[in-house]
Amino acid sequence: MDKYLKKISGPEDLRKLSTKDLKELACEIRSFLLEKVSQTGGHLAPNLGVVELSIALHTIYDSPRDKIIWDVGHQSYVHKILTGRHDRFDSLRQHGGLSGFPKTSESEHDVFQTGHSSTSISAALGMAQARDLLGEKHHVIAVIGDGSMTGGMAFEALNHAGDTGTDLTVILNDNEMSISQNVGGLAAYLGRLRTDPKYFRLKEDVELIVKRIPHIGGKVLSSVDRVKDAVKSLIVPGMLFEELGFTYLGPVNGHQVEPLLGVLRGAKKIKGPVLIHVLTKKGKGFEEAECKPDVYHGIGPFNPECPPVVSKQNKVPTYTEIVSKTLVNAAKKNDKVVAITAAMASGTGLDCFEKEFPSRFFDVGIAEQHAVTFAAGLAKRGFHPVAAIYSTFLQRAYDQVLHDVCIQNLPVLFALDRAGIVGEDGETHNGLFDLSYLRHMPNMAVIVPRDEDMLQHALTTGLKHQGPVAVRYPRGKGEGVKLKKPKALSWGRGEEIRQGRDLQILAVGPFVYTALAAAEKLEKRGLSVGVIDPVFVKPLDAELITRAAMSARYGLVTLEEHVLAGGFGSAVLEFLEANGISDVTVKRLGIPDRFVEQGKRDTLLEELRLTPEHIAAVCLEMTGAREQEMPWVQSVSE
Amino acid sequence: MDKYLKKISGPEDLRKLSTKDLKELACEIRSFLLEKVSQTGGHLAPNLGVVELSIALHTIYDSPRDKIIWDVGHQSYVHKILTGRHDRFDSLRQHGGLSGFPKTSESEHDVFQTGHSSTSISAALGMAQARDLLGEKHHVIAVIGDGSMTGGMAFEALNHAGDTGTDLTVILNDNEMSISQNVGGLAAYLGRLRTDPKYFRLKEDVELIVKRIPHIGGKVLSSVDRVKDAVKSLIVPGMLFEELGFTYLGPVNGHQVEPLLGVLRGAKKIKGPVLIHVLTKKGKGFEEAECKPDVYHGIGPFNPECPPVVSKQNKVPTYTEIVSKTLVNAAKKNDKVVAITAAMASGTGLDCFEKEFPSRFFDVGIAEQHAVTFAAGLAKRGFHPVAAIYSTFLQRAYDQVLHDVCIQNLPVLFALDRAGIVGEDGETHNGLFDLSYLRHMPNMAVIVPRDEDMLQHALTTGLKHQGPVAVRYPRGKGEGVKLKKPKALSWGRGEEIRQGRDLQILAVGPFVYTALAAAEKLEKRGLSVGVIDPVFVKPLDAELITRAAMSARYGLVTLEEHVLAGGFGSAVLEFLEANGISDVTVKRLGIPDRFVEQGKRDTLLEELRLTPEHIAAVCLEMTGAREQEMPWVQSVSE
Repeated sequence: MDKYLKKISGPEDLRKLSTKDLKELACEIRSFLLEKVSQTGGHLAPNLGVVELSIALHTIYDSPRDKIIWDVGHQSYVHKILTGRHDRFDSLRQHGGLSGFPKTSESEHDVFQTGHSSTSISAALGMAQARDLLGEKHHVIAVIGDGSMTGGMAFEALNHAGDTGTDLTVILNDNEMSISQNVGGLAAYLGRLRTDPKYFRLKEDVELIVKRIPHIGGKVLSSVDRVKDAVKSLIVPGMLFEELGFTYLGPVNGHQVEPLLGVLRGAKKIKGPVLIHVLTKKGKGFEEAECKPDVYHGIGPFNPECPPVVSKQNKVPTYTEIVSKTLVNAAKKNDKVVAITAAMASGTGLDCFEKEFPSRFFDVGIAEQHAVTFAAGLAKRGFHPVAAIYSTFLQRAYDQVLHDVCIQNLPVLFALDRAGIVGEDGETHNGLFDLSYLRHMPNMAVIVPRDEDMLQHALTTGLKHQGPVAVRYPRGKGEGVKLKKPKALSWGRGEEIRQGRDLQILAVGPFVYTALAAAEKLEKRGLSVGVIDPVFVKPLDAELITRAAMSARYGLVTLEEHVLAGGFGSAVLEFLEANGISDVTVKRLGIPDRFVEQGKRDTLLEELRLTPEHIAAVCLEMTGAREQEMPWVQSVSE
Repeated sequence: MDKYLKKISGPEDLRKLSTKDLKELACEIRSFLLEKVSQTGGHLAPNLGVVELSIALHTIYDSPRDKIIWDVGHQSYVHKILTGRHDRFDSLRQHGGLSGFPKTSESEHDVFQTGHSSTSISAALGMAQARDLLGEKHHVIAVIGDGSMTGGMAFEALNHAGDTGTDLTVILNDNEMSISQNVGGLAAYLGRLRTDPKYFRLKEDVELIVKRIPHIGGKVLSSVDRVKDAVKSLIVPGMLFEELGFTYLGPVNGHQVEPLLGVLRGAKKIKGPVLIHVLTKKGKGFEEAECKPDVYHGIGPFNPECPPVVSKQNKVPTYTEIVSKTLVNAAKKNDKVVAITAAMASGTGLDCFEKEFPSRFFDVGIAEQHAVTFAAGLAKRGFHPVAAIYSTFLQRAYDQVLHDVCIQNLPVLFALDRAGIVGEDGETHNGLFDLSYLRHMPNMAVIVPRDEDMLQHALTTGLKHQGPVAVRYPRGKGEGVKLKKPKALSWGRGEEIRQGRDLQILAVGPFVYTALAAAEKLEKRGLSVGVIDPVFVKPLDAELITRAAMSARYGLVTLEEHVLAGGFGSAVLEFLEANGISDVTVKRLGIPDRFVEQGKRDTLLEELRLTPEHIAAVCLEMTGAREQEMPWVQSVSE
């Protein structure tokens, strides 16, 4: 089964294999991926799509001397297998294990870390310019999907690269998908290129034309350059890229090793920036994944023999599902509600909205900047857009939120999915900065629902408010609470969830339940601990927080699944300072000033000391009692 | 002189004029612009370049029913003149006066506010989709420069627009410049289009070809579509835009009213997205500005008869000049120092660097996202890039700083010019958020020099540190202090500038001098007030701040030209909380939670109560004394 795979301890071993062997290796790798990823979960379909491409790249290029940069990076599994890491795949995406993305600390073959889309050409161009300045000779290759190519910064980089004229290879991995089907003029353009893949044959035909064209109409001859351009577009289907200064090669079948090796060998000889258009199929080789590439894009553990069936019955809904349902219902009542996604219709739950209201749904491609300002345009004309974008990806549109939405105080509802720790995707995908980066924007309101029921009300509130509102909520299932009828919340009002005299825990999001668990533990120790859910991180409930500060004998604890710098706890500190309440002790709990790596959320929360046990220990310490008095903490303290 | 101008109280009056009259009007407007902008200062050259274009747009389109969106918006003066605001030009860019950018509160003709680059197509597309959903009939027009077109979000929007097929007109105002000369493959492409402006004539020629081509080589006929595409590229020079789904018209001379009217009339009839390529000249009609369009891009008041001469002698250098000098000197000593600008070589002072080290200087176009990740690529290969980007524009690359630089802890020095209140450009250009948006990024260090001497040391420190460092400094002249030899600062160390027992003012940036002035005022009242410059906003000087907190009898005052939410003062609150220092009163002074509009910095600081007088009053209040005891405050209090 792993006849060839076991021989590959590094890319150099690929060069010992015949093309036929490489094809066999591809089969083995597919089986390996299916076996491993079905156990650990991970980005299966994207990796099945780049098996031959990764093999060809590592056969032709000399990594790590040549630098290969994987855009987004979730398609780097095959690259990892080929660069000596296949024995670590049991730990894929686990805490302390192999990352699902390129990681410089993991291997010298991972030359640049990625995670978010559309960064690879910029990084590659930087490395190419560094090479030129250093007088080194090596190749720099960016591998980017057609979905990522719709991100504006990829275009910025193409534009700059074309200008520099430096040697740089961009592999356009065209699978006609981002996570779901691609949209946009570029996708249509690539589609046209795909329709006639007879590039090499056509070249001969064109030479015929070149000879004859000067003899057509006499007048046209005066525009010889224009005619030459036209001929060039006959020769070179990738005129769009050629116009930006790239040599376009392709399209080439990305599942046939031989033509791939051929085109890569050819590209190595071309001076200046080259774009190679490679056609691949997401999920290639695993029928289930080929048919449902979105389902198998990123997936949890599954049984390959018995594909996952999504059962909708008797289970706690995910936050995403609540968003999906709430927005559809809101849109039924209010025809000004429109929805926008940046290539994440199913991830954000907007796929239902799309089905119900296709004309009021907009998938703009992987283009968060445009998504937000596009929403601003709609809002300016009387609509109430919902921009449903993961917390980590809205980082891409920080300026558009501030400059295009907040300055004009436009009614745009930002639905920030995957806020908090996301788990296996690790530091590039955690949504741990949103409260800080949104809270300082004038006119912005920020609501953090504690459970799936509150999420309904938060969204309803956001759609009622005539200004920007961000609602942040976590990945995964809700808390299992009863769902009431969605209604708008009292603006800026928090809730006292549990009364207490000694201490008050101000917790946001599902951490309200963590706080309750801590309070219950403390009650057994004779401490009366209140729990307050401010609901709104901005504007804060002045009355409630003042009352809490005044009434808590030992002080306040703030609790958030978010960085401490500038987050909710800081907002509370600011509030107390601004209101001259200086005689209260505050202890802020949250994420310290470091990136949080991959791992199960529970494991990470334990490591970050954000469990009921640890929180209880902090509370107890504030009362003057010592940590040692709490046996349940000792067991987990290091 | 204003024979025609005085007749124009709104766009409808344009339609009463003949083409000849419109030409005369254009002349009058140029004189008017020169007269007014030479008095108030402003964006002269961009507006001189769009006189005919603005006239033509308002003649053909029916604003405000038709929506015209001005990208960046500094070229909207003529639009303002034509829409009933020419009598307000004496107040241009003044506090409470006419904005230098489109402002919805100013006129119904300003349909969307702009300021930052490359947003217009997104906003226009949003409005176009809103129109379609509402079943309305009107035109939506985005006017965007070729410089702004290099910004990635413009491409994101073109891509999406091409896909929707909705009616949308994009005017590409091609002046071959952003603020300085444009760079990039796109600029080169537009250059090729410009070389053959004989579009309309050629069309006839091409029709000849279309008829004949089927008769060329038999083999080629099998690829009929390809041939048609080639012919299309003969007909339509703007293949790049056509490929994205736009109908390309042009290029057309943007300084001749008749062809402009013609092409706009034609565009109105075309279904789907249209791009009109208009060739203009920045500064058109004012020779000085035509020759030096960068000098006259944005300019202070000047004498048109006697153009401004920059005297370099006996004057206090600007912060930008210090950056310019320091970086050149650093680059002489260290060949790993490279510099990157996003189309702002002279604004950021990198023009000198470019002259000295052309191969180590990179102008990437208006493309902040790419600029930062490009820097990360260079850093990964051993260079120490300086990304010199205005504070307000680095907002565009928030995610790239976090995701591509900070996660990998790469040595990139961010030189943030125009931090704080910028004055006349107003709320879209103030640099009031950087401390908040940078401070919460793990691995990032933030230095805020108090004067031009410290700026040298701060940059030197940044270039020594092996991780990301941001240095933020204001627009304009330094404090007039003596310049020492640049040296690296002690990492994370602040300075006690003035000793005091009663209160300690912790001030960042040039506000240190404001704090000193306040302290001196208070000394006259018998109060001993210390002034501390933390120098580093991150990492904070733990020892110094602890000492200040412990020693100040009445407490601490923090002072920053920055929003209060999440800023320096919040960092101090967080520090005190994290270190269990809860028995000190803190008062934070800075910018409240609102956008700060245009006006002279001094006027605005007075309004924001950030003058020595107001600060002294706050201090006095903290000691228990009443504000009324300070006569200098009463006079300015409302």
